[in-house]
Amino acid sequence: MSQTDSPSRARRADAERNRDKILAAARAAFANPEVEISMAEISRRAGVGMATLYRNFPGRRELLEALYTDEVDAVCDAAGILEPETPGVLLLAWLHRFFAFFTSKRQVGAELLKHSEGSVPVMGESRARVLAAGRPLLVAAQRSHEVREDLTLEQVLDMIVAVASIHGESDYLEPILQTTLDGLRLPTDIEPT
Amino acid sequence: MSQTDSPSRARRADAERNRDKILAAARAAFANPEVEISMAEISRRAGVGMATLYRNFPGRRELLEALYTDEVDAVCDAAGILEPETPGVLLLAWLHRFFAFFTSKRQVGAELLKHSEGSVPVMGESRARVLAAGRPLLVAAQRSHEVREDLTLEQVLDMIVAVASIHGESDYLEPILQTTLDGLRLPTDIEPT
Repeated sequence: MSQTDSPSRARRADAERNRDKILAAARAAFANPEVEISMAEISRRAGVGMATLYRNFPGRRELLEALYTDEVDAVCDAAGILEPETPGVLLLAWLHRFFAFFTSKRQVGAELLKHSEGSVPVMGESRARVLAAGRPLLVAAQRSHEVREDLTLEQVLDMIVAVASIHGESDYLEPILQTTLDGLRLPTDIEPT
Repeated sequence: MSQTDSPSRARRADAERNRDKILAAARAAFANPEVEISMAEISRRAGVGMATLYRNFPGRRELLEALYTDEVDAVCDAAGILEPETPGVLLLAWLHRFFAFFTSKRQVGAELLKHSEGSVPVMGESRARVLAAGRPLLVAAQRSHEVREDLTLEQVLDMIVAVASIHGESDYLEPILQTTLDGLRLPTDIEPT
């Protein structure tokens, strides 16, 4: 029996806590791609019963989609909450965040593809959401002449994704990322005309 | 009967011409990845008999390897024959050449992988040859302070390959390539310290 004045509110809070515990356990489990973690193991690590796990996430795919969507949410939110010194600095900080998302997301993304039959609608939607979140940042940074104007956001993000897809540890990738970002904010008048 | 004073030399010249004709026909054939071209069709387009084709290239794989190796040769040679205004300009011109090689090579490379059982020794060797050809260029460009020093040649080439692997037409990829190359030659003191 709940101690609060509203048993249904307490139930909702319980349900939300369980959902968060499951997602946290799943996120930690998928962080190590070497080991294939079962739904039973995720339920054990989250400290919730199998019934609760399956009530929240009918299958592995739904669980992966929720993780993926959470990460996309975080990237989109970051476009609003980063400390904006100048528009250019804001854009570059956000692109760093996107890079980090993409390198970590790859595991969840790869798992998600394995457990789906070809198309994964949530992935297409998330690209659209990320583009919508980043668009004002690029426009502002280009307007303030901190960032070159010959690239669209699609091209910028494809560039970051390409670097994130290079095989290597983060200390191998980081200088490559930095090079591309430096190229982005290069004043276009460095080239003799 | 040959008219020259050395029939065997004439035969060798004939054989070389045939080989060149086959490679040219195959190169043109593989340039369109939509259409799968048969060995018989390549022999027809090259204007040589099937016996001659198979004497030169026992199978599709050998033909693809020869094409691939020819392209790697051209990239490596370019490291020596490009007009060297400054070490930095030379390096960037060569990286452009490498990018062009890699975007065109992908078709031959993909075909080669299809017709091999997993490992393709010629690919591993060609990476080593390209690294050997480019190394002096990067060292010289870094010494002349035209190019940043925090990247190795492996990182530079991985970056170019990553951009070349982005899905898109050349006018979509070109500004992305330019951005990464601009980042490469960015003076390291642009960052406030």
